[in-house]
Amino acid sequence: MSKSTGCCQGFLHYVFDYETPKTLIIPSIRVGFVFRFTQFLVLLYVVGYVCVVQKAYQETDSVISTVTTKVKGFAFTNISDMEPRFWDVVDYNIPPQGDGSFFVLTNVVMTPGQTQSRCAELPNPSTTCVDDCDCVEGYNDPRGNGTPQSQIHPHTPTPTSLLAEAENFTVLIKNSITYPKFNFHKRNILSHINSTYLKRCEFNRKTDPDCPIFRLKHIVSEAGEDFQDMAVKGGVLGILIDWSCDLDWWARKCYPKYTFHRLDNKHPVNNVAPGYNFRFAKYYRTAEGEEVRTLIKAYGIRFDVIVFGTAGKFGIVPTIVNLGAALSFLSLVPMVADWFMLTCMKKRDLYSRQKSTYLVEESEVESASMSTTYGTQ
Amino acid sequence: MSKSTGCCQGFLHYVFDYETPKTLIIPSIRVGFVFRFTQFLVLLYVVGYVCVVQKAYQETDSVISTVTTKVKGFAFTNISDMEPRFWDVVDYNIPPQGDGSFFVLTNVVMTPGQTQSRCAELPNPSTTCVDDCDCVEGYNDPRGNGTPQSQIHPHTPTPTSLLAEAENFTVLIKNSITYPKFNFHKRNILSHINSTYLKRCEFNRKTDPDCPIFRLKHIVSEAGEDFQDMAVKGGVLGILIDWSCDLDWWARKCYPKYTFHRLDNKHPVNNVAPGYNFRFAKYYRTAEGEEVRTLIKAYGIRFDVIVFGTAGKFGIVPTIVNLGAALSFLSLVPMVADWFMLTCMKKRDLYSRQKSTYLVEESEVESASMSTTYGTQ
Amino acid sequence: MSKSTGCCQGFLHYVFDYETPKTLIIPSIRVGFVFRFTQFLVLLYVVGYVCVVQKAYQETDSVISTVTTKVKGFAFTNISDMEPRFWDVVDYNIPPQGDGSFFVLTNVVMTPGQTQSRCAELPNPSTTCVDDCDCVEGYNDPRGNGTPQSQIHPHTPTPTSLLAEAENFTVLIKNSITYPKFNFHKRNILSHINSTYLKRCEFNRKTDPDCPIFRLKHIVSEAGEDFQDMAVKGGVLGILIDWSCDLDWWARKCYPKYTFHRLDNKHPVNNVAPGYNFRFAKYYRTAEGEEVRTLIKAYGIRFDVIVFGTAGKFGIVPTIVNLGAALSFLSLVPMVADWFMLTCMKKRDLYSRQKSTYLVEESEVESASMSTTYGTQ
Repeated sequence: MSKSTGCCQGFLHYVFDYETPKTLIIPSIRVGFVFRFTQFLVLLYVVGYVCVVQKAYQETDSVISTVTTKVKGFAFTNISDMEPRFWDVVDYNIPPQGDGSFFVLTNVVMTPGQTQSRCAELPNPSTTCVDDCDCVEGYNDPRGNGTPQSQIHPHTPTPTSLLAEAENFTVLIKNSITYPKFNFHKRNILSHINSTYLKRCEFNRKTDPDCPIFRLKHIVSEAGEDFQDMAVKGGVLGILIDWSCDLDWWARKCYPKYTFHRLDNKHPVNNVAPGYNFRFAKYYRTAEGEEVRTLIKAYGIRFDVIVFGTAGKFGIVPTIVNLGAALSFLSLVPMVADWFMLTCMKKRDLYSRQKSTYLVEESEVESASMSTTYGTQ
Repeated sequence: MSKSTGCCQGFLHYVFDYETPKTLIIPSIRVGFVFRFTQFLVLLYVVGYVCVVQKAYQETDSVISTVTTKVKGFAFTNISDMEPRFWDVVDYNIPPQGDGSFFVLTNVVMTPGQTQSRCAELPNPSTTCVDDCDCVEGYNDPRGNGTPQSQIHPHTPTPTSLLAEAENFTVLIKNSITYPKFNFHKRNILSHINSTYLKRCEFNRKTDPDCPIFRLKHIVSEAGEDFQDMAVKGGVLGILIDWSCDLDWWARKCYPKYTFHRLDNKHPVNNVAPGYNFRFAKYYRTAEGEEVRTLIKAYGIRFDVIVFGTAGKFGIVPTIVNLGAALSFLSLVPMVADWFMLTCMKKRDLYSRQKSTYLVEESEVESASMSTTYGTQ
Repeated sequence: MSKSTGCCQGFLHYVFDYETPKTLIIPSIRVGFVFRFTQFLVLLYVVGYVCVVQKAYQETDSVISTVTTKVKGFAFTNISDMEPRFWDVVDYNIPPQGDGSFFVLTNVVMTPGQTQSRCAELPNPSTTCVDDCDCVEGYNDPRGNGTPQSQIHPHTPTPTSLLAEAENFTVLIKNSITYPKFNFHKRNILSHINSTYLKRCEFNRKTDPDCPIFRLKHIVSEAGEDFQDMAVKGGVLGILIDWSCDLDWWARKCYPKYTFHRLDNKHPVNNVAPGYNFRFAKYYRTAEGEEVRTLIKAYGIRFDVIVFGTAGKFGIVPTIVNLGAALSFLSLVPMVADWFMLTCMKKRDLYSRQKSTYLVEESEVESASMSTTYGTQ
């Protein structure tokens, strides 16, 4: 036999000789039961919990969403400070564009006729305005709210909201979502909704859970708030739309779930900077060409439509990773069974003797040096 | 030998005696081939699919983005209902600020000269306005669109869009992104773009894929819509910018990918609440100080710039997890080879005899009681 | 013994006979040390790196956030081009509503008195305006900025910003966040902040890191920019709020971390399309009923409040997956010890002989045919 043949054979042996563990078969029903039971527990966990409950075999994607909103309703006000006035969506929905965040004015402080002139008089300590004046103490404090344009006008919102009728306004929310990874598109106006239904329906968790038209009072009360209370000082209210979906089996059952939460803090323990308001102005020009503005401090409820959700769909990589992890635990099962066999069984010594063999020393030289370390057998 | 020495030796043996499985070497090329081939398949999956295709060794981060937009273009209208008029960006881009969502007015219904007075006459059934009236049936229906401000004025948008020229408007989109976990920053005006190019370029998927200036008609047609159709009733169009990047090897090739989709539903099967419009008003004051407003129902296309993407970069934890899962599968390979060896090979009985040993009972007491359960060997 | 009993017994044996590997115990302290040390390294990695550093046992959730902002401060301008004028928040904060993106006007180009009439004269090459004209070259170029409304008026922003005092404006940022998966809510006005503190505090990374009121100059300088430079041409500045939290142990220490970055590009190497500006108009009506507008090109700083973060909390699935991966690596340890034992130890031949047994051929028929392939032992 030539050397190269021998080398080649050695390589073939190295690569293709199959080395399999020698095993000892123990015909004990107790040990066998412990082994099978532990295996069963691991499989139960993997199949039951990881796959069915947690759906760990799925890869996930986050929602991409677009929202348009349209508020409807009008109100009539007839209070002493102001002329009788009708309010429609153009007046109370500021700014007008219907995107995912819309504001409904519920209370207002108007300061009409402001022109570019100095304050008529400087405030003195008897003036009660602190945070809501138009004229501040000179113009060296950039934290002041107003400008020295008109005369002192300490104002606070009326203790009852001006547009109390706003609670009966409704809003139509159109929301289209996409899960780009799964090429999945859906919108909250579901396929079974027709124009007739949409004209008369109103969201109700029990009777009309799919209707995308919401009465403002209903939204606020579902958030655990009182509309009239909230309307006085304003606030921020979240309309949360949860699009979490399982796209494997229930893609058709992928419906939006609406919840409502007040987003600004109103708890008395930490009630700083409450409410929600902002200022804006309407600018006019007098016949003489002078610019005049009506300063409006608008209190109201900002509704933020917040769309979130995660879709899951079967994916190879998470499946493999989770199966791999499960297999790792299955490989622990023999350890458990061995431990039980070698410690809890009566015949543990017999098992141990036949399972494990001590190395039989053929040369005694090394074992002698070894014995200096921790003795011999 | 003292007891403590013995105890210590026992502990040392317990900790440092190495227990290794006894193995049987089977010089069968068939079994060996099955073993190696299965190993190869697992490795191929791990290296080829998990690492190269799915890049499961990467940790990921979601994009943080900021967008500014600037629309350019103007139009001239000369229709019978309205005075000849020039429209520039200030007139048709509402609200003016160029953030990630901009609106281009394409059609308009104006109701000038509204003042705070009652409706001149109540609507009667012969009035054809249903959804687009300014005067509604009294003020007890908060779902009505209008206010009882002026006389009945049933209006619908003109069947052809007013600002047909809007299709030639262009928009410059500036988009800066960050992957905070990887401290990676980039913007869509790539480094090779200079001012000269930016002044004359226009996005085209083939010839100018990097130009951040888009002609509105081009956007709409890439979304599979016709601009003039869409302009009549309005709509919402998504400009999706995908920044998905592999930051390991191709960080320099991290470019934005633009796609365009219509986001509101326009399919005839579920064509409820079509289009996109909103109302706003321009307020004037007459010489007598009375507030007058021009109510404008604006139809148009809202363009939502939606930035998404996930960046991946090598991470220790996902690598380890995926390697671990792969190793788990490698540990299954001997089972496959064993199964093949013990069921498909001719010499399976020989292999089985030498691989597995039955327990040799030394005491017969327990085995007798055992035999009552399921017999003896 | 009947056949069914035998079959049943065979099944019981198949299911409940426990097959355990035979092992060889090697009392070598070197091999044992290599084995234990490798085990220790794997455990150290798992416990130390994966669990403590990377917290891979946690499942994660992305933040859902709402932001309201309120700018305060006012300025007085007295320049030659314009009448002396006071600017308050209503004038410089456009649009007025305080959401997560607010704009502070710092420079302005006003074109008052525009009416719907043709350009008085067409531009000729000597006109220097290129990008900032109100009158463009006819109306065939939709890229032009302006409309042919008034006479040629080439304008650029003043080289120093108009509202230099804007650097002393302050902004109150109210930010409420939710991690829906963990039902965790928090806001950036922390529980220890009271109204008194909130009235006088100002954010400072060292002395007042929890104060939600920011001086604009401070924001810009922390972003590495100069406010006055940035104010001339405008820009976009990101106020990044990082809510990354570990909700297992330090849920109470879940605080917002503020950082500031300029989001638009201003580097000289790629300085195309610099700054930030937009146009809007104030519309008036003359006594004769003609619509007049003041066109305003507003330069300023847009502040984008960007809230991001990932919360982690102990989760069963990631824990299991990571433990599984770790166990896979532990199952590699015997391979390392075996390799060390069979290649690096002096007694490797002794170990090898006793660990591995060659198959003893009982029938020579197949082995003869086998030997034609790669020989016999």
